Amino acid sequence: MFSLAPGSDARSQHSLEALPAFAALKAEGEAFATRHIGPTAADQAEMLRVVGAVSLDDLIDQTLPSSIRAQKPLGLGAGWTETQVLARLRELAGQNQVMTSLIGQGYYGTVLPAVIQRNILENPAWYTAYTPYQPEISQGRLEALLNFQTMITELTGLDIANSSLLDEATAAAEAMALARRVATSKSNVFFVDAECLPQTIAVLKTRAEPMGITLQLGRPETDLDAQNVFGAIFQYPGTSGQITNPQKQIESLHAAGAIAVMAADPLALTLLAAPGELGADIAIGSTQRFGIPMGYGGPHAAYMAVRDAYKRSMPGRLVGVSVDSAGRPAYRLALQTREQHIRREKATSNICTAQVLLAVIAGMYAVYHGPEGLKAIAQRIHGLAATLAAGLRALGVTVETTAFFDTLTVNVGEGAADLLERARSAGMNLRAAGNGRIGISLDETSTPETVYAVWSVFCAEHGRVEKMAQALAAASIALPENVRRQSGFMAQPVFRSCSSETDMLRYLRRLSDKDLALDRTMIPLGSCTMKLNATVEMLPITWSGFCDIHPFAPADQAKGYQVLLQDLEKWLCAISGYDAVSFQPNSGAQGEYAGLLVIRAYHQARGEGHRTVCLIPASAHGTNPASAQMAGMKVVVVKCDAGGNIDLGDMREKIKTHANDLAAVMITYPSTHGVFEENMREICDLVHATGGQVYVDGANMNAQVGLARPADYGGDVSHFNLHKTFCIPHGGGGPGMGPIGVRAHLAPYLPGNPADVDVSMAVSAAPFGSASILPISWAYIRLMGDEGLKRATQVAILNANYIVSRLKDAYPVLYQGAHGRVAHECILDLRPIKNATGVTVDDMSKRLVDYGFHAPTVSFPVAGTFMIEPTESEGKAELDRFCDAMLAMREEVRAVENGEVAAEDAVLRHAPHTGLELTATEWTHPYTRQEACFPGNVQPATKYWPPVGRIDNVYGDRNLVCSCPDIAEWME
Amino acid sequence: MFSLAPGSDARSQHSLEALPAFAALKAEGEAFATRHIGPTAADQAEMLRVVGAVSLDDLIDQTLPSSIRAQKPLGLGAGWTETQVLARLRELAGQNQVMTSLIGQGYYGTVLPAVIQRNILENPAWYTAYTPYQPEISQGRLEALLNFQTMITELTGLDIANSSLLDEATAAAEAMALARRVATSKSNVFFVDAECLPQTIAVLKTRAEPMGITLQLGRPETDLDAQNVFGAIFQYPGTSGQITNPQKQIESLHAAGAIAVMAADPLALTLLAAPGELGADIAIGSTQRFGIPMGYGGPHAAYMAVRDAYKRSMPGRLVGVSVDSAGRPAYRLALQTREQHIRREKATSNICTAQVLLAVIAGMYAVYHGPEGLKAIAQRIHGLAATLAAGLRALGVTVETTAFFDTLTVNVGEGAADLLERARSAGMNLRAAGNGRIGISLDETSTPETVYAVWSVFCAEHGRVEKMAQALAAASIALPENVRRQSGFMAQPVFRSCSSETDMLRYLRRLSDKDLALDRTMIPLGSCTMKLNATVEMLPITWSGFCDIHPFAPADQAKGYQVLLQDLEKWLCAISGYDAVSFQPNSGAQGEYAGLLVIRAYHQARGEGHRTVCLIPASAHGTNPASAQMAGMKVVVVKCDAGGNIDLGDMREKIKTHANDLAAVMITYPSTHGVFEENMREICDLVHATGGQVYVDGANMNAQVGLARPADYGGDVSHFNLHKTFCIPHGGGGPGMGPIGVRAHLAPYLPGNPADVDVSMAVSAAPFGSASILPISWAYIRLMGDEGLKRATQVAILNANYIVSRLKDAYPVLYQGAHGRVAHECILDLRPIKNATGVTVDDMSKRLVDYGFHAPTVSFPVAGTFMIEPTESEGKAELDRFCDAMLAMREEVRAVENGEVAAEDAVLRHAPHTGLELTATEWTHPYTRQEACFPGNVQPATKYWPPVGRIDNVYGDRNLVCSCPDIAEWME
Repeated sequence: MFSLAPGSDARSQHSLEALPAFAALKAEGEAFATRHIGPTAADQAEMLRVVGAVSLDDLIDQTLPSSIRAQKPLGLGAGWTETQVLARLRELAGQNQVMTSLIGQGYYGTVLPAVIQRNILENPAWYTAYTPYQPEISQGRLEALLNFQTMITELTGLDIANSSLLDEATAAAEAMALARRVATSKSNVFFVDAECLPQTIAVLKTRAEPMGITLQLGRPETDLDAQNVFGAIFQYPGTSGQITNPQKQIESLHAAGAIAVMAADPLALTLLAAPGELGADIAIGSTQRFGIPMGYGGPHAAYMAVRDAYKRSMPGRLVGVSVDSAGRPAYRLALQTREQHIRREKATSNICTAQVLLAVIAGMYAVYHGPEGLKAIAQRIHGLAATLAAGLRALGVTVETTAFFDTLTVNVGEGAADLLERARSAGMNLRAAGNGRIGISLDETSTPETVYAVWSVFCAEHGRVEKMAQALAAASIALPENVRRQSGFMAQPVFRSCSSETDMLRYLRRLSDKDLALDRTMIPLGSCTMKLNATVEMLPITWSGFCDIHPFAPADQAKGYQVLLQDLEKWLCAISGYDAVSFQPNSGAQGEYAGLLVIRAYHQARGEGHRTVCLIPASAHGTNPASAQMAGMKVVVVKCDAGGNIDLGDMREKIKTHANDLAAVMITYPSTHGVFEENMREICDLVHATGGQVYVDGANMNAQVGLARPADYGGDVSHFNLHKTFCIPHGGGGPGMGPIGVRAHLAPYLPGNPADVDVSMAVSAAPFGSASILPISWAYIRLMGDEGLKRATQVAILNANYIVSRLKDAYPVLYQGAHGRVAHECILDLRPIKNATGVTVDDMSKRLVDYGFHAPTVSFPVAGTFMIEPTESEGKAELDRFCDAMLAMREEVRAVENGEVAAEDAVLRHAPHTGLELTATEWTHPYTRQEACFPGNVQPATKYWPPVGRIDNVYGDRNLVCSCPDIAEWME
Repeated sequence: MFSLAPGSDARSQHSLEALPAFAALKAEGEAFATRHIGPTAADQAEMLRVVGAVSLDDLIDQTLPSSIRAQKPLGLGAGWTETQVLARLRELAGQNQVMTSLIGQGYYGTVLPAVIQRNILENPAWYTAYTPYQPEISQGRLEALLNFQTMITELTGLDIANSSLLDEATAAAEAMALARRVATSKSNVFFVDAECLPQTIAVLKTRAEPMGITLQLGRPETDLDAQNVFGAIFQYPGTSGQITNPQKQIESLHAAGAIAVMAADPLALTLLAAPGELGADIAIGSTQRFGIPMGYGGPHAAYMAVRDAYKRSMPGRLVGVSVDSAGRPAYRLALQTREQHIRREKATSNICTAQVLLAVIAGMYAVYHGPEGLKAIAQRIHGLAATLAAGLRALGVTVETTAFFDTLTVNVGEGAADLLERARSAGMNLRAAGNGRIGISLDETSTPETVYAVWSVFCAEHGRVEKMAQALAAASIALPENVRRQSGFMAQPVFRSCSSETDMLRYLRRLSDKDLALDRTMIPLGSCTMKLNATVEMLPITWSGFCDIHPFAPADQAKGYQVLLQDLEKWLCAISGYDAVSFQPNSGAQGEYAGLLVIRAYHQARGEGHRTVCLIPASAHGTNPASAQMAGMKVVVVKCDAGGNIDLGDMREKIKTHANDLAAVMITYPSTHGVFEENMREICDLVHATGGQVYVDGANMNAQVGLARPADYGGDVSHFNLHKTFCIPHGGGGPGMGPIGVRAHLAPYLPGNPADVDVSMAVSAAPFGSASILPISWAYIRLMGDEGLKRATQVAILNANYIVSRLKDAYPVLYQGAHGRVAHECILDLRPIKNATGVTVDDMSKRLVDYGFHAPTVSFPVAGTFMIEPTESEGKAELDRFCDAMLAMREEVRAVENGEVAAEDAVLRHAPHTGLELTATEWTHPYTRQEACFPGNVQPATKYWPPVGRIDNVYGDRNLVCSCPDIAEWME
């Protein structure tokens, strides 16, 4: 077939474009960059005029210290067209071979209902949303997450569940850490069921070591000495498929003041006694098989549920029910004070990003199927597995698993390799379980034919299989009595409300309409880089060639992924100056942690294991100190000066003080204050001189791609927030993706394959983290090319400085660079307003909702401020709409300042205003209804109406409700 | 590869399911039907209780006369799962071979911007919307259509454009009919440029003959005698690619009182003088290449633009600007009185459905690219074509086309067949233009490599081609001076407002949020069957294997389509009892017209051409008489009795009177009044006894699929509204699809291939009409299977009768069957309310918007009534929400009845209430603000806020504005 795709064709095409006859006929060229970047060329010129710069280059010269500027182009070539990129990605998807993977091990075939795929995963109203820190404009996804939490508490039989964790293996590690915190046992030993998933064991090992925890791996029935552990984790069902009831072991753990963790398959729990019923204190697991494609390892939503007693110690985000200003129920994130951005190095976890989009999908899968539907799916899978086992036995195969849900282990001795190969020839991946054993896991996509095909793999005689199949009776259930579930679950009305697709569709629309996402408005969040998530970048992630690959499928079935990973590694190295990249960390915080572990391993390998001090400036994001303490480092805080810059004196001093035990300095650059500090190179040199390493937090890469490279100015490691700078959407609070780049001397210490029993370091369950969303970043970089990426950075900086120019007379701007410029974000100081008028930063942020905006980042990194990052994707018109709103709000404040209205009566204090309040017959405010709801240039025909009024956080934390209230409660 | 797909695998799987071991382990089985059908089994039981029936079967026995009941199941087998259906469709898509089609002839490769694909074509908010008859809840799509109309008037240089027609060929036929109506010439000859597209010529021939118009085909420069024609059509550029300026011919036509029509390529018009500038009175064409995939022929949006003088004669829908109750600008359909449902047999066209979804996309393509972007695309294509021509000439090929845009005709003599074959081997389809000629059309997807590949087809010596390419200079422009466009176009702000994807995304969201579609609420339109358009049915239509096939590609490249068409024909025959199906009619009205032409041809073939009378009951849809007159038949109206049934006496009488000249009886069954008439079989027998034929209008197939078959009870022909009963979404007013089924004796007269020069009948441009949306209906039928389809019909009837039971005490129900049952829809009589209170049916329909509903069908088929068809997809909760709203409204009426409030002050009269009005400081109504906006159980948090108040239709028709007002006008 004649192909218009790039690859070899693209090369020849590019060479054709060099011919005189075609020279004037290039395809759109930079076209995508002009779609990605908001302001048109004419707008940019006007904006440069406003900020007082001659050109983009001039502005950048005033912003980036020359000492850190890159000296040459990235070398990625010109941007491709959208058509070319899609064609190439289709080629790569085609190079992945979609087999029927019966490998199991935490990853299963599943059916994502089309209505959920299209209306959540492929709907920008869901995927471009931000973390629900502003609950008034996030009621839709908060409700969806509450469904998820409810589903988890119901299935696990525990009291409270968070709204997802990154993956099952890290959830197990978080459970171990939680157990350590809450156990009364003084032991530092944690017992790990040998039936745990291999990758879970690998991540537990990695996590335990820096925390001083000793792991004991064994069989619970024989090896667990409850007296000498602070906790234990049991896999349910086990990796081999075998189900054992850990009730006795749990009792003995409790008697010893130790904590019992169960890693449980939520689909199996529809048939199996719930962990809570068996006495477990904590349950964790993956909800992947609730509709989320395997995606070569992720992203998926892991879960954690705990007994009520431990709820305040539970890591991760928790959605709770509170009330709004009118006393009506409303959702919001509960117990926020537990989070790392508050607790910093005292945090017990660096968990920041959750897997919101995936948790929403898994929860909706449960809503769509309901309890009966889930049970029917599980029963069907179990029936197929039981039939498979019966048939295999009839064919003379040794099936070792006696009590199972969906997974069998068969012992075939020396024939294992041949059988695995025969299976592959038949289009199936089975699990090589070692020692002559093969694992077979059935799933929602399995059919009688799957079973028949497996039989045929194990018995080459067609006639014999057929005869056996004809003779085989219906298999009886293989679940032992003592683990069968007797209790009902998910009786809440929501799980019976959407049995038809129409009902489901409308429910999803109703929820998404409550929320403000990028598809309706600028989300000017500082530090969070809410840029365009272009459709063309998103299309491939739902293609079968990327979705339906098991993370532990043979490498030759994932050739397309390998090429994509190699390309992306090469490009990220070109962009950052590093020499190697690991894609394993599946969030930014995971990246920090992994990067610090790499530094740690490097020091240890050089016999300098005593280097454990990590210097972190006071301005750093809270995950920095949290990650450092998890990596076994001692955090020493470096002061910042009044300008927001690192106090160079203090830094010099502390480097000197810790010259011998300095492991690393962790610096965000440009700083969390939005400034390119002038002394970056000097600091890096000082650190290196001591033998320490420099961790450059890549959170703000959006301000330097194409202009400066961390490795060039001194970085040894950085993580890249692909969900920020590289266009993976925020998904309402995840998935994130935080690969790390390192210089060559650190490359040997990068994470290994978590499924490898001898792996020395593994930070996530899957080898390449959340691989299935990498096509997004791949596409972005390929579409933009050298020029596009650089231009994006320049315009991001222009946009931020334009906002500063427009707002600086109304609001003091904190922290500017040497030439009075900010980088890609700026901080507006609202404290003088608070002091003068009593109008709070909360009043301002909620009032922005009335203006149709998501608030900027509130009180980070400085309390009482707004931090604003417009990104390059916002056009001048939208920036002006935002600035106009901010200026109009300033006038509303002025009315308080001038004494025209008291703060408590001001329109700001009562924001956001709901339709219900605005149409009340009585109106007692000193401002008019229309001043309340159509301020500034808000257009009535396109007004966003907040579904709830201002939400009472304190009430919610005092009266913690974290699962769906039943209908009667709502009525009250 | 081991495949879980059906096909051969499905068969073996089904046989495996028969084994005892698997018997209990069937896949979901009826699962999809339970997703498609709204009420759960428990709900159905409760609803049956309310309507007073023992069971669904009992209810059906009371509803359908036994004389028409089908005697056996459909024989389609069990429904497949969604997974199976997707797998099979993927197989079929894979059997279509995507080549680079350079065939042209009105169909071109094009790039649908991903942001438009995802957010319109794949977004239920757009595709499940209904025709914008209720403008207050349709402002989004009306604005989008106004953009389309503006784009057309700007490109064509004419005064007014409609909001799309079905395809270019039928648009040409409509233009011919319009010319006949408005020309002062008395000639009955219409001149057709021999350069017109072959399929346009075929459709013109078909249309002309029954209208008594003589076509003259020839070369305008030599063969056109302006004195002896009433009009002429010129193709611009011509099919061969040649561009000629028809200005002189147009002048001579005008001098003779004749009308000039130009069929113009809108992309070429960005470079070519506009038809209006050349003097044309009418321009028509296809906007396919504005982002709409070729889709094996459709659907695409054709356009028509006319001089101001002819605007009231123009067929099709027209969006205009008017004002709402507050005097603000608002959009609505203009000049509705021209439409066939008003004018019936006096209508000049049967056009009903438009191609709204496609027109919206084409308009947005123009918004996204803007005038400069469109011009750049056109210039690039033209440059490639000029380069192609220069290279071919340099290689010694005879290029006949001297002035061209994108298409060349080359004369290769006897080598043509070989060259076409060589091209196919290289992955390209060129056009076999006959007489040793080959056509090559470049398009937006063409690249230098495409050009190089074509050169290589024409010259097998690699070295020679390469040398030539190296030596070739940039080609000069091949547009003659006298056709180059000098004028600007599309200066309206909207065409410069969305240069970034972010802006486009938000614009699309903003528009869709203004509209109510099925994704938010029941749309209880009688006769329009707004049922679920399941996502799984919609997924395949954007797959390349279905999208990227040229309608005139060699048959062996469309094997997947052929299998799909064969399946669908077989299934529609099984459902209807007919023997053959033609998929050519691309709307319901087109189906009627085609079916009547088939009957006409049959009579003529039997020497009974004098049979021209068509009996049509008074209750028929307006398209019936309109189609009949277009088919050259004489419409005789048959009375209906007070019960809504055909007056059997009158029918018998008229059959008798016209026994010798009776061509057909056209009956909608069940009737447009929603009743299964008892005498259907008798009427059919009487008609057949005279030698006449029975046309059963399939509009109401939703009431009989699986229960009764038109061919069984006497039908000879029917059309199937695939966009109603068979789940193709309404798309905001199109695409529709109206294939016809016929009994065996009529099969020889079905439409032929429009591209075939000798075709005797062609009703659409493409052989299989809008082929690319057929996977939707294919999937629906395959998912539902025998049982599912039957159950759907039963529940549709249950739902309608449930509404009757709940509302009959509040509103008189017109027309019920012999046992007091309605079929799948019901008519509520609001005339008594109007008479008693002055509250109008309009007041009621607009008030429903405040309750969050789309109004039912208003005043059809009976003035002053609501007609309601709930369909099977609405669940009990939504039916109750609707009935509760209707009952609450009845109480609002009662307040007027009781004299508590005057009609002019009633909440009903001022509906719908906008946010702006509701928040006005002054409130002068006797009802409260909250009574206005939160009536009944409307939830404040999920309230739909209408963007405009009630719209003034009269004002809009008096002050006709049908293109985007510029920004200054809006401000006034």
